[in-house]
Amino acid sequence: MATIKDVAKEAGVSITTVSRLLNNNNYISDSTRKKIRDAMKRLDYHPHQIARALSKKQTHILGLILPDSSHSFFGQLIKAIEMTAQSKDYKILLCNSLNDKEKELSYINMLKENRVDGIIMGSHALDLDAYKTIKKPLVTFDRYIDDTIPYVASDSYTGGQLATQHLIDQGCKQLLHISGPLKLSTFANRRADGFKLTCIENHIAYDIIESEYTKLSYSYFYQFIETTISSYLHKIDGVFCSNDILAYALYVYCIKHNINVPERIKIVGYDFCRFSRMLKTPRLTTIAQPIDLIGQILSKSLIDLIEKKETYNQQLSVKLIKGETT
Amino acid sequence: MATIKDVAKEAGVSITTVSRLLNNNNYISDSTRKKIRDAMKRLDYHPHQIARALSKKQTHILGLILPDSSHSFFGQLIKAIEMTAQSKDYKILLCNSLNDKEKELSYINMLKENRVDGIIMGSHALDLDAYKTIKKPLVTFDRYIDDTIPYVASDSYTGGQLATQHLIDQGCKQLLHISGPLKLSTFANRRADGFKLTCIENHIAYDIIESEYTKLSYSYFYQFIETTISSYLHKIDGVFCSNDILAYALYVYCIKHNINVPERIKIVGYDFCRFSRMLKTPRLTTIAQPIDLIGQILSKSLIDLIEKKETYNQQLSVKLIKGETT
Repeated sequence: MATIKDVAKEAGVSITTVSRLLNNNNYISDSTRKKIRDAMKRLDYHPHQIARALSKKQTHILGLILPDSSHSFFGQLIKAIEMTAQSKDYKILLCNSLNDKEKELSYINMLKENRVDGIIMGSHALDLDAYKTIKKPLVTFDRYIDDTIPYVASDSYTGGQLATQHLIDQGCKQLLHISGPLKLSTFANRRADGFKLTCIENHIAYDIIESEYTKLSYSYFYQFIETTISSYLHKIDGVFCSNDILAYALYVYCIKHNINVPERIKIVGYDFCRFSRMLKTPRLTTIAQPIDLIGQILSKSLIDLIEKKETYNQQLSVKLIKGETT
Repeated sequence: MATIKDVAKEAGVSITTVSRLLNNNNYISDSTRKKIRDAMKRLDYHPHQIARALSKKQTHILGLILPDSSHSFFGQLIKAIEMTAQSKDYKILLCNSLNDKEKELSYINMLKENRVDGIIMGSHALDLDAYKTIKKPLVTFDRYIDDTIPYVASDSYTGGQLATQHLIDQGCKQLLHISGPLKLSTFANRRADGFKLTCIENHIAYDIIESEYTKLSYSYFYQFIETTISSYLHKIDGVFCSNDILAYALYVYCIKHNINVPERIKIVGYDFCRFSRMLKTPRLTTIAQPIDLIGQILSKSLIDLIEKKETYNQQLSVKLIKGETT
């Protein structure tokens, strides 16, 4: 592979001059600059970013830990994070934790060893204390760790209110919310708070049932409905599901068991991810998160933190999308 | 951050001894090993992989260039690639090319500068010659470049045959195939060959219409059907679509325009990606690719190539999934 020495020789300039150009030093004439660039092209020379990383103590690599890139929501989030990072000259090391404690920990260690400049944490299997020891710029998706660590999330509390008020406005008298595990300090769990308070204020009877956060697939949700939710369905007339895949699984279960949607049971989801945007039968009633914007802000916040600029916690607004399931 | 010197001091051993342990040298007693490991833990010491990469000329990082991580097919592929790499102690730098020539080229240069050990190329916007200059271990998904570069693909030719024969067996007399741009030397385009030959052998009239490969979204496909495909629909009774999102968009178009599926027009897709696995209305008739296996083999082949083991081109078998659209 061509070295800086080869480039200098090919361009007929000194090594110092080439090095000046690589370090964006401006004291080089346009003609010299062109000579060097042409030589680099001819020799297929690429500056050695690993060596630069070592001398500058900066790799321009961000670590991204998420539960599952194959999930429609996270696939879209990854794209927005990566494209924003790329536009600011940062790269993404991607980690699928499957929400597994051991995996999450081993990824954190790997990212430290590889001296990433910072980490975006969208997987939440570990206890809060584990994240406090990371000692790297860190931004979380959807989880509050402490006041030193910025987070980005959608306004789940309002989302829970909107979904619940909509079900009540449509005439529901007995509601169910299917949440993730409520012991986790995620913002997503505020959907349950918004649900609960809206039910109480409207004197509506309600139940909350927790699903496992670690399993996000359609097949897990369908099975969960069969084993845990089905026995509730006779006594309720509206369900607020904490994500769209779950809402769709519930819809499919109902149709298969001759429970009319929306006449007998109304269903509201959450996310409006790429899957539910495509889905036409039924068009889900759901709470839309601005997924692309969340990804962009996650990237930007982490880079600001790395570059010592001011950062802010951000909760982004959500809105109700009226479909055919209510 | 703790250094190797701090660890040696904390453990009460020499720097050479710590360094021996880090390089997996076996001449260290178990008790010394334990002392050093404990000291590392107490000091939150992490070996400096960037410095190691520089001295060993190996980063243990793989570059992955794909069109779009938010697409259901690629999200699933990324997960399989990353998890296989992780199990072999390699990391993934993820790049979304959007099938754009300039983006693809700038990602290739970035990966070279960052001295990745190899590249998985699943985006195909550039001319073949551009890939030949990469001079790094390279494995492609779905494209033949030359005999020195291994590829992994599904057996698209057989897939095209299976889909077409199935449409004919169901009574279709006039078929349409909607392909990607056929000038690209991708294996996916062999679906069109399998389609064509099966039509000819069965004396069935056919058309092939090319869509743009660069745009993979539902909304693009739906618009493409409205502008380009709709005028053909009156004269055909079966369509083989080169992917499931396209097949679903066609189904939705037909239903909206009172064209009965499968009575009036039968539809077969390709992929059986996570989206179509979830979709229940309708269950698509489609050709299933083993997406997880393709991802696993892509990772493994590239790592084998990097580690100078023998590698092979692999075309993986596909099968017909009978749904409700035929």
